[in-house]
Amino acid sequence: MLIDDLAKRPGRWLTQEGPRSDVVISSRIRLARNLENHRFLSRADDSERRHIYRALADAVMECVLGEEALLVSMEETTVLDRQLLVERHLVSRQHAEAEGCRGVAISADESRAVMINEEDHLRLQCLSSGLQLDELWTEINQLDDALEQRVRFAFHEQYGYLTACPTNVGTGIRVSVMLHLPALKLTNEIDKVLRAARDMKLAVRGLFGEGTDAIGDFFQISNQTTLGRSEAEIIEDFGCRVIPKIVDYELAARKSLAQNQPYQLDDRIWRAHGILSNARTIGTEESLFLLSHIRLGIQMGRLKEVSIETANELFLFVQRAHLQKKNSAAMEGEQRSIARAELLRDCLNPSSR
Amino acid sequence: MLIDDLAKRPGRWLTQEGPRSDVVISSRIRLARNLENHRFLSRADDSERRHIYRALADAVMECVLGEEALLVSMEETTVLDRQLLVERHLVSRQHAEAEGCRGVAISADESRAVMINEEDHLRLQCLSSGLQLDELWTEINQLDDALEQRVRFAFHEQYGYLTACPTNVGTGIRVSVMLHLPALKLTNEIDKVLRAARDMKLAVRGLFGEGTDAIGDFFQISNQTTLGRSEAEIIEDFGCRVIPKIVDYELAARKSLAQNQPYQLDDRIWRAHGILSNARTIGTEESLFLLSHIRLGIQMGRLKEVSIETANELFLFVQRAHLQKKNSAAMEGEQRSIARAELLRDCLNPSSR
Repeated sequence: MLIDDLAKRPGRWLTQEGPRSDVVISSRIRLARNLENHRFLSRADDSERRHIYRALADAVMECVLGEEALLVSMEETTVLDRQLLVERHLVSRQHAEAEGCRGVAISADESRAVMINEEDHLRLQCLSSGLQLDELWTEINQLDDALEQRVRFAFHEQYGYLTACPTNVGTGIRVSVMLHLPALKLTNEIDKVLRAARDMKLAVRGLFGEGTDAIGDFFQISNQTTLGRSEAEIIEDFGCRVIPKIVDYELAARKSLAQNQPYQLDDRIWRAHGILSNARTIGTEESLFLLSHIRLGIQMGRLKEVSIETANELFLFVQRAHLQKKNSAAMEGEQRSIARAELLRDCLNPSSR
Repeated sequence: MLIDDLAKRPGRWLTQEGPRSDVVISSRIRLARNLENHRFLSRADDSERRHIYRALADAVMECVLGEEALLVSMEETTVLDRQLLVERHLVSRQHAEAEGCRGVAISADESRAVMINEEDHLRLQCLSSGLQLDELWTEINQLDDALEQRVRFAFHEQYGYLTACPTNVGTGIRVSVMLHLPALKLTNEIDKVLRAARDMKLAVRGLFGEGTDAIGDFFQISNQTTLGRSEAEIIEDFGCRVIPKIVDYELAARKSLAQNQPYQLDDRIWRAHGILSNARTIGTEESLFLLSHIRLGIQMGRLKEVSIETANELFLFVQRAHLQKKNSAAMEGEQRSIARAELLRDCLNPSSR
């Protein structure tokens, strides 16, 4: 697999329809691990960094990712390709923008991605459509075991897995889901719900994780606790209690909109459709904001002209690196806005296909 | 003709394409006249008012308006019908909202309308498509002569025709044109142009004349001078010098937009089309604002999916009284917004016709 292949289609987690995917876009579990007998990266010199990279890249490619996996050395990759990986949620922004020997290994279907030399030596991520935390936990647990056959991770009997940042010490686990909450936004209940989530020590972030704003009504919610509780407890609490509750709030808000303000609801949905299928120049944020309303319309059965696959794909393909990859050209902001509008018109106007 | 017939179709001046109608929607000349030997209305009692009304209504219907003309007694007319007359530019807002014996007589094609007992005893108006002031002047002059065969107007050898407000004394003429200046608005040159017009002692008003704001980039420009110059001079100056200059500015702005910002221009035009053909609830002002961009697109040959007739009709039919007439029901604001959106979708989506 080549990195250019990525840009041509969405990853499996985005094309499938997992449980509760009317609200839960995707589930993600990641584990933070560090090699025993090596310094944390903040203290490692260039040579040690390269040593860690090689050791982990080999182990990961053999034990974790299967055939046709892709190993990307971030040092040797263009800015555009690194941006592409961020847009696909395969690396963090920090990892894309950092310096030094570092990389990411990606399975062909993008359901598994392993960042090497990000904040920790290893960040192992499993991604799936909808709310599927138990399945992900089984999967990532097996991968972790397989890796431990090959390498030894820094582990302390009392504290658990040791990590560069104390917030990850213990299980090294972070469980997160990407939620689509447009109705809570429209009914102005979103702040209340997010405040409640924060009160439960959950982190609420935007579309691209740490330090990013919520765009297009997408919210990434993740657990903050890694110490003092088992992985199973964390996943049980998060996946069976907290997230279903938020999902129910969103569905109640959708129902309330449909009952009490059907015209205003359809107006939002159809104006979004009208603008996206007619604009001649449009930015990323506005596109995502309007696509969010289109997705809401599809999920509520009020917009049948667009398939959920098309909407999901567009969330990826309107983004700047994807656009440039598709057009095989570096483009300035204005050119991108024009190309983005063209793409949207092509995909949303059935007659012009 | 009945008043309900009006609501079914636009007047002739709106369906025809007069000279320079890419920028000049319509031309209008009106004359203010008062009967000799009668008090001005501010001093006339109810009985004198009725006497004036009857005398003028008879004269006007016989001499001025031809067959199938309509005489509307404003006292005996519903609020909705009075609003309809305002929306069609057949009476002023003031006349619609006033009290006492008053009326309007309208020719079948709406090119002539005579308000009785507005500010003056008689306000005679001729309306045509595009820029046609000479033709209008010939026409209104003949009507004035015909009326003077029947009634005697208050006239002073030195001052000319006497009127209730000193600003109308002399010729009693007001010449005005309705201009569509969307490109000057988009290029931010509109204020400069309107300031220049005001410096030339011209009045600049909105879509419904005195005291109304410009909506949808429509500006009514009229002469302020009635004293000390002949009608022919006023019309010559206004129609052959001032207005063509503003028209040229607008056309230059359109050309500049097409050359320098074609995508931004098309974006305005097509977003307007996208919103109007998809919205589920929409107010009058937003509709007129967006229809203005659609009209620009049609006139510039950039939007071929909508005919100029459809656009022109919609400018009338989206307004509140027209909407209610069409739906044969009194409607609250929210209902109107929903019905307006339905009308726009019906007219702008060829497939759904």
